[in-house]
Amino acid sequence: MTAVNDVQSDRMTNVSESVATGPVTDEEIFTGHEGGKLGVAVTKPLADARSLAIAYTPGVAKVSLAIAEDASLAARYTWASRLVAVVSDGTAVLGLGDIGAAASLPVMEGKAALFKTFGGLDSIPLVLDTTDVDEIVETLVRLRPSFGAVNLEDVSAPRCFELEDRLIEALDCPVMHDDQHGTAIVLLAALRGANKVLSKDIANQRVVIAGAGAAGIACAKILLAAGVGDVTLLDSRGIIHSGRENLNPIKEKMAEVTNKAGLRGGQAEAIAGADVFVGLSAGTVPEEIVATMAADSIVFALSNPDPEIHPDVAARHAAIVATGRSDFPNQINNVLAFPGIFRGALDSGARRITERMKLAAADAIAAVADDDLAADKIVPSALDPRVAPEVAAAVARAAKEDGVA
Amino acid sequence: MTAVNDVQSDRMTNVSESVATGPVTDEEIFTGHEGGKLGVAVTKPLADARSLAIAYTPGVAKVSLAIAEDASLAARYTWASRLVAVVSDGTAVLGLGDIGAAASLPVMEGKAALFKTFGGLDSIPLVLDTTDVDEIVETLVRLRPSFGAVNLEDVSAPRCFELEDRLIEALDCPVMHDDQHGTAIVLLAALRGANKVLSKDIANQRVVIAGAGAAGIACAKILLAAGVGDVTLLDSRGIIHSGRENLNPIKEKMAEVTNKAGLRGGQAEAIAGADVFVGLSAGTVPEEIVATMAADSIVFALSNPDPEIHPDVAARHAAIVATGRSDFPNQINNVLAFPGIFRGALDSGARRITERMKLAAADAIAAVADDDLAADKIVPSALDPRVAPEVAAAVARAAKEDGVA
Repeated sequence: MTAVNDVQSDRMTNVSESVATGPVTDEEIFTGHEGGKLGVAVTKPLADARSLAIAYTPGVAKVSLAIAEDASLAARYTWASRLVAVVSDGTAVLGLGDIGAAASLPVMEGKAALFKTFGGLDSIPLVLDTTDVDEIVETLVRLRPSFGAVNLEDVSAPRCFELEDRLIEALDCPVMHDDQHGTAIVLLAALRGANKVLSKDIANQRVVIAGAGAAGIACAKILLAAGVGDVTLLDSRGIIHSGRENLNPIKEKMAEVTNKAGLRGGQAEAIAGADVFVGLSAGTVPEEIVATMAADSIVFALSNPDPEIHPDVAARHAAIVATGRSDFPNQINNVLAFPGIFRGALDSGARRITERMKLAAADAIAAVADDDLAADKIVPSALDPRVAPEVAAAVARAAKEDGVA
Repeated sequence: MTAVNDVQSDRMTNVSESVATGPVTDEEIFTGHEGGKLGVAVTKPLADARSLAIAYTPGVAKVSLAIAEDASLAARYTWASRLVAVVSDGTAVLGLGDIGAAASLPVMEGKAALFKTFGGLDSIPLVLDTTDVDEIVETLVRLRPSFGAVNLEDVSAPRCFELEDRLIEALDCPVMHDDQHGTAIVLLAALRGANKVLSKDIANQRVVIAGAGAAGIACAKILLAAGVGDVTLLDSRGIIHSGRENLNPIKEKMAEVTNKAGLRGGQAEAIAGADVFVGLSAGTVPEEIVATMAADSIVFALSNPDPEIHPDVAARHAAIVATGRSDFPNQINNVLAFPGIFRGALDSGARRITERMKLAAADAIAAVADDDLAADKIVPSALDPRVAPEVAAAVARAAKEDGVA
């Protein structure tokens, strides 16, 4: 983990020197993307004829032959085993929708930059000019010797569920759709923090999740795995329940395990009396509906850039409020999870990312927040350098416990 | 070209500090490959919340939207337009043959390291677990938005000819099989240098090429394009001529344009009276056959690690001798060509790599050698920092002359 610590202490120094000077301008943004945001670095410098003879011909032939004779040596003598492929087909890019592979690339480069900065991990964006699930799986199977893990990103629902399942089955390496599980893991960490502040027990809580896309479904699943009392899932047509027509297969499945309360109706019916609201829908929630929540309620209004309800308004009725934004307290940001998760999975040589590894990541994030827990500090800062190493260590331990490493 | 110059002046400093200490040991080689040879670098550091807001959410959304609205902006705001995919299926790795994709990766990492060190270019190895030409083409077409050029490497003949042709047709970006054209370009540069030393005219020369694989065929083609008098191609069954049975399609085509002399037979018949011998076959040539060449003959014994004839033995009969090895004078090494070729092609925005661009590269390499030309200095050193920028500039000019940039 030396690389991680090195990178992060550099970063910390810079953070303390940084000065906020108002919202970022378009000029800053486009200048900050000129030429792209990534480069390739040579870790064994070709300084002279001798290093050339080691790293290239004739020396490299011995390494290639050794791998040809014992495939397991590829993990030791190539970068593949520590390389994450950041894969997207550009069908659900941020809140922008299906803008295509080329337009998704700046996001994937940003993701790779976050992997490096927070996890000390190398990653390459692979953006695909096809949205066919079979073709995406086939492409990554063919490229398998080139990388060590797959971070799926910005793939539209419900295709993303099938794609992730198919890749996990086809590839003998960690695969994770971050929009689902990264979000879910940080959400669970935040709920653990909030519950500790409020002395609440997750087993007694009913959580309303507005949005049944990639993130909404994954959040529902991790809360159920963590033993939540009840989950009410909302999509654009209202509460998801088994009596509803035309549910897609994943929603049908979720209808069976959520809504124990047997609620019917829309947002108002779902939120009335709920303990926790999780907004992942790019919708809005009126103040009068938030006012109907249970006492000491928790509001996670995570839509970006516009939360479902302004945090100051939500705070009139809720005991704890969080958003996805960096300019309010309690930012629920995937960057708390994915660098450490992949780092832990790759460090431990895990063949896959299990539910236990995800829960362990959430607990590790919550544990970092514990030191300094308060109603406006339920999760660590996105820039907290302690998070990724703690998450990586917890994930690696969980991988061993699960027998996948 | 700033990046190139920066990189190269660093390297030059190191070169002068380097000390040769005998042949490289296995320990040096394996230590020099531990963990692989590449990493990813973040060119726009994520130092603080502000830089995060520029490079990732919310800032990146504006860049993605701009590209979605105007696809040409991808070249400016992502790394793809300056990224070379180093692609192999592992079917003809160095002299090791078909050892598979995973075992080829150390070679591709080395190639990427050379691209960076000599051309200041970013590149990523993509090694493919399929040897089916259709599938390789399909895979790269799907990944097209991820890169700006394709360097094909270590693909077996004759599949490599079809694969390169198909990729050039399918992708609107520079594609080059380096084992073919990199070798051919440096060979032509070396022949120009040798001819200048000997005051010979290529138009009056007969060149024997031993080996009709990827490199042999490409060398024959570039020499014909450069106006050579005659080429005699040899494969394992002897001289390639149109009277021979069972020639594969590419050899059949070559039989039509080579062997004007109408020779029949094997190595002895081909080499007797020849002006130039080019060995690309991993075979051997006895001294008594070299002795039958024309006066002031030229021997390029390029097989690695064992030249077809020891250069000291060849020198008893030939006026100029070159090998592929760094420990003899006149090293004919692809690294003189490919970094500058791809750099020039990408800098100029060329859609393909034309014959004129290849000839221009050869002339640029020869021009650098000109300053200091001698029988044992017919090409620049593989470490000469002047080469890549000169090649890049010449290739970019030729791309514009050809109307492909």
